[in-house]
Order: sequence, then structure tokens, then C-alpha cells
Amino acid sequence: MNLPLGYRYSAVYAGLRKAAKPDLVLIVSDTPASAAAMFTTNRVQAAPVKLCRRHLASSGGRVRALLINAGNANCATRTGDRVAAATSRALAKALQCPVDHVLPSSTGVIGVELDGSKIVNALPELIAGLAAEGFAAAAESIMTTDTVPKTAWAESEGVRIAGMTKGAGMIQPNMATTLGYVLTDAVIAPARLKTMLRRAVERSYHRLSVDGDTSTNDTVALMANGASGRPPGRKFEEALAQVFESLAQQIARDGEGARKLIHIEVTGARTDAEAVRIARAIANSPLVKTAVAGSDPNWGRILCAAGYSGAAFEPEQADVYLQGVRVCRRGLAARFDEAAMAGKLDAKDCRIQFVLAGGRGTAKFWTCDLTEGYIEINGSYRT
Amino acid sequence: MNLPLGYRYSAVYAGLRKAAKPDLVLIVSDTPASAAAMFTTNRVQAAPVKLCRRHLASSGGRVRALLINAGNANCATRTGDRVAAATSRALAKALQCPVDHVLPSSTGVIGVELDGSKIVNALPELIAGLAAEGFAAAAESIMTTDTVPKTAWAESEGVRIAGMTKGAGMIQPNMATTLGYVLTDAVIAPARLKTMLRRAVERSYHRLSVDGDTSTNDTVALMANGASGRPPGRKFEEALAQVFESLAQQIARDGEGARKLIHIEVTGARTDAEAVRIARAIANSPLVKTAVAGSDPNWGRILCAAGYSGAAFEPEQADVYLQGVRVCRRGLAARFDEAAMAGKLDAKDCRIQFVLAGGRGTAKFWTCDLTEGYIEINGSYRT
Repeated sequence: MNLPLGYRYSAVYAGLRKAAKPDLVLIVSDTPASAAAMFTTNRVQAAPVKLCRRHLASSGGRVRALLINAGNANCATRTGDRVAAATSRALAKALQCPVDHVLPSSTGVIGVELDGSKIVNALPELIAGLAAEGFAAAAESIMTTDTVPKTAWAESEGVRIAGMTKGAGMIQPNMATTLGYVLTDAVIAPARLKTMLRRAVERSYHRLSVDGDTSTNDTVALMANGASGRPPGRKFEEALAQVFESLAQQIARDGEGARKLIHIEVTGARTDAEAVRIARAIANSPLVKTAVAGSDPNWGRILCAAGYSGAAFEPEQADVYLQGVRVCRRGLAARFDEAAMAGKLDAKDCRIQFVLAGGRGTAKFWTCDLTEGYIEINGSYRT
Repeated sequence: MNLPLGYRYSAVYAGLRKAAKPDLVLIVSDTPASAAAMFTTNRVQAAPVKLCRRHLASSGGRVRALLINAGNANCATRTGDRVAAATSRALAKALQCPVDHVLPSSTGVIGVELDGSKIVNALPELIAGLAAEGFAAAAESIMTTDTVPKTAWAESEGVRIAGMTKGAGMIQPNMATTLGYVLTDAVIAPARLKTMLRRAVERSYHRLSVDGDTSTNDTVALMANGASGRPPGRKFEEALAQVFESLAQQIARDGEGARKLIHIEVTGARTDAEAVRIARAIANSPLVKTAVAGSDPNWGRILCAAGYSGAAFEPEQADVYLQGVRVCRRGLAARFDEAAMAGKLDAKDCRIQFVLAGGRGTAKFWTCDLTEGYIEINGSYRT
């Protein structure tokens, strides 16, 4: 993979998580980059999320460095704001850049004070380790309950895009956090980058659900440092969106306890917004997710979920396809080979298509099956 | 228990479910009773639900009989409307009452045609078996995946109230259905009964969630036949509400795979509506429900769920109590004995209080913990 030019990466163990694996990551652009970011909509917001908003506002969307720690979410903490500010200041001083050119992120346990000195003390080693080859190590170091690192990249008309993300669930006693960082060496102004980020997130992270819980730390950032000297071409935005979609799908596939990635596609709704409502209801239905886990072609649960989604449609006009086979026709049972279907549903990828007649609204959505593994991971605080 | 006067009950096995246990229930009032009912808001509605609406409208809220079958939901079926109408007609003829004085309900598998002849053929035996003592047998016969029958009763100033309900989840390959029937011998006009039903459901069935899925068959009916010759007294409506609350709580306690009943209480919200939003978000959070299953005093997940509920509040003003012990104070960790708390959370009843400062909005809500049992029941179609 060809990484974007002008970025370096580093990861060290700062002692924030119990397991002695790297828990502090630094991503630096050699020059100030255009940057845009989107954050959790939860009313409870972690200190680094609040600080990132302020830094992006005061810098006008310019960023040199991303400082990410795992092991502690720095949320619902007395000293949270001070710790986020102090660590950002220390890094900015070391990099000789304005403090608002630093975007901090945290993921891990909430309600436990984050010891900022551990981060400050680790900075020299972290900065010394900066290398263009550090991308993979960085992606691995932001993992919490993730079972695999998640990266994606693309090259489009002479510019490069690379992204890493994490998310699967929580490290006990904690909640899920989604973090995503996408870098490009294209020349893009902050304002335009913001628009591109919103469009890409709309068809990727906003189409993703593992358990319907929205964390206090969710952060997705996009940086463009212009190191390629080229503006984005006509195909750039599509390439960017595909990187985002790949990252979002990898999160769903690695959902806690998940054995299957569920692809949901709704077509024929009155509007795209209604298609999304239907897709989200199907994706969040425990009945649908457990049925998929059991390779149960249970179209009734899918029709039911669509029915309470709030979207307006006539059940008599709804067809449901599983793995490309129509199991429900016009709201009624369709003839299909149950045994063969159960076999098809044992695949690692399950495709659910909800097809309505008439409308032009469409939506894609990704989730995972719901298994005993999810319960074990999230119910076993004391074991 | 003193049952309301003037009602008789019967249950037989009509061959609708595989297990040879009663699956057809009849509840008859000796005289036409005032009646009110509330139904699922799902856009996909079972045939009996649609027919009940029509019967209540045309009869002006008068009902003689409730005809309930388990084993088949008569939903998403080609012949559903005809079968519901034909079985109601046959019963009305046998009871010599207008057809719109019959309210049919179905629960069980969806998408499979319901054989109405099995019901019609069972009517003679069903009617012959009508007896005032049949209440308990009827409550047992409407069970699907319920592990226990659910009944509640009260006596208030010379009038009696008795109710039965079912709901826990689905019988594979099927979806959850909540059915509830409450009878009284008080003298109440249909219009007033409707108001009383709405108020009672608002603080009982509308405060209940097992998995957030809304079924296509949900039906709650209230009948008042006046057999006591007395109007309801001042305390009647409170007694009625307590019967409804008891039934709703019994459903949550018997939720699929559930080991614990979770009582959620929100106070200090800006409005009751916002208190309900917060309570519902907490009740539907898989992270909260699995934490309770694991006796994990994980207040962070509770704060997080409230944060994405859509209700407006300042996290700095939120306290969280578990089993009466404050675990979160003003949005921050409170000091408490973790080991002792884990022990307290092993109880069969778990109380979560979310306390905000300032507002007058309050809400009570009931749900259950989320365990491996839920996955087993709902994912094991082929086993």
C-alpha cells in the first residue's frame, strides 16, 4: 500500500492500560494540514472531544498532530479538561506548533481519572519513534476490544488516502468508542474538506450499528496535508468514501461477539431518509440479529422491524431477500428451500434486502449478528 | 382472589400449536360489557388486530367475548382477514350475539396460514367448558415462551378487577407478542372506560421493554360488565392502574432469558416526556442490560444511555443510584463499596434511579437483564 506523503506515526506503552502493549499513539503531518472532524452527539462528552472542537474552531481547521490514548476515555472525570489541555500543550511545545494544531482522543474506561503525567512523560520516546512506516503499528495500538486492526487505503489520480479505525465495543467497565482517522496528501482547503468528510461519514459511519449505543468519545477526523502538491481529481471523493465504507464495515464485522457482517440494503422507500429509518430499525433489532446468528431465515422479524421504524410503507408492497433469495413477497411468505437457505446463512456475510415498490429512497447499512459472545464480553465485569 | 362477577372462561387444545396443551381461550361476559382496547402501533398489523378495531368502532365499545389463540399470529397471511372474520362469526352465532361483540386475538408464528376450521371445530367444546373458575386455566393457555402465567387482581369499594397477560418473547420462528385482558364488574360507560384504559396503559404497558421490538399483534383490552351493580369508587382507577402495573412488571420479569427485573426511575427531568425518553434509553441499552446481568455497577453506561436519549440535561447535574446506593454524583464517580454493590446486584430485582436536579419530570419504567438465554431462545431456530 502507498501511504500518503508527509505523515509519520509512532506508538509507545505509557502505562495507561494494564496489558503492556502500546496505548499511546501519535500521528504527525510534516506541515500543518487542513483538517475536519465529526464527534459524538451524546450529551455526555469526553474532555478530549470538547477540546478538539475548540482547537478546530480557533485554528480554522488546521492540524499538525493527532494524539490518541487507549486504556482511559478521560470522560466523567474531575481533572479531564485540565489533563486534555496539559497533554496537548506539552505535545505542541515539543513539536513547536500552536496548541490548537493538536487534536487529542481518548478511549477506554470512563469515570476514572486519567494520569496526564504518564502521557507527558512518554512524549519524548513517542516523538523519537515517529516514522513513515509506523502506520500499521499505530492502527494496532488504538485497539481496545477489537480483535483485529482496521485499516483501508486508496490511490486516486496521483493522491493517496489511508485510514485507520477502532471500535467493537468496550473494555470493561466501559462503553464502546469509535475512533477513525483518515489521511490524504491531496491539496484541499479546510472548508471543502469538511463537506467531503460529512458526505463520506453519511454513507459509512452513519450507516453502522453494533448495539445501538452511542459513545461519549466517538471521533472521526480527516486530514489533508497537500504533500502530493495535487488537488483532488474527479474520482477522489468516491475513493475517499470507499475508504470510509471499508473502515465502517470492518467495525461491524468485528462487533463484539460477532460471527457475521450483515449488509442491509433498502430500496423503493419514499425518501432516502425513510430508507435509512427502515435500515436502522432492522440493524438494531435484537430479534433480527439473533436470527442471523442462528442462520434463521426469519423474514417476519425483518418485516416487523421495518413496520415500527416510523417509515410509511404498505406491507403488501414489501419484498425481503436473504442472500439474494426472495423469502417474503408482497408482505407474505415466498416459497424457498429452507434447508438450502439455512446453509447460505452460515456464510460470514449476510445480505438483507428490503425492497419496496414505487419510491426512489435507498439506503445501505451495516451491522453484525448478536451472539452469546456479546453477552460474555459485556456482562462479565467481575470475572 | 375474588374474581369479577359475570365472567366465564374456557380453554381447549385446538391443534394450533405442536405441544398438546390448550391453545384456544374464550372469555365471555354474561351480558354485553363496555369495552376498550389498545393495539400495536406497528405498520404491519395482524388480521385480528384490524378486525378488533372495526368491531369496537361499529359496536360503540360493547363486547361479549374475547377469543384468543396461541400457536399462530395470523399475521402476514393470505387468508388472515377471512379467517379472523369467519371464526368471529361462528362464535357470535353460537353465543347468539352480534359479530362485532367478539374481539379475536392471535399470538404465535407469523407468515403461516391459520387454519380457521380448527378453531371453528373446537368452539362447541370450548363453549361447553365455560366456567367462572376457568380464569387460571385461561391465563395458562395464552402462554407462548412465557415460563409462568401472569395474573393480577384487586378489589376496590365493592367492585372487582382481574387481569391476565402474556409476553416474554417469541415462539420460534416468531416474534414477541404482548396480550393483556383486564376485566371488572364495575358499571362504566365505554367512553369513560377508554380514558381509564389509556391512563392505566400509559403507566404500565407503555413503560415496559424487553428487547425494544414492537410486535404486530400487541393487544390490551379492558372490559366492564357492570355485574356488581356499582359504579367505580374514588380509589378504583388507582386499583386498576396497579393491576396493569403488576401485569407489565410480570412480563419484564419473565423476559426471555431474564434473571432480573430492572426497575428504572427517573426524577428531576424538565418534563415527564423527557423523563420517559431517558428511562426508555436506559431500558433499551444492551450495555446496561448486560451489565445488570453481570452484576456490574456500571453507571457510565447508564449516564451514556441517558446522554443519547435526546432529552436535554446537564451531565454535571446527574446522580445515579443502584439498589439505593449512589454510584455517580453530579456526573462523576461516587465512592462506594464495589464488592458489596456486586452482591446487592445479584438480587432478583435491580433498582436504577437516575436523578436530575431542578425539573419536575418523572418516569417509572421496567425491563429485564440481557443474558445468554435471550440469544439461545432467539438464535436457535434449527436446534
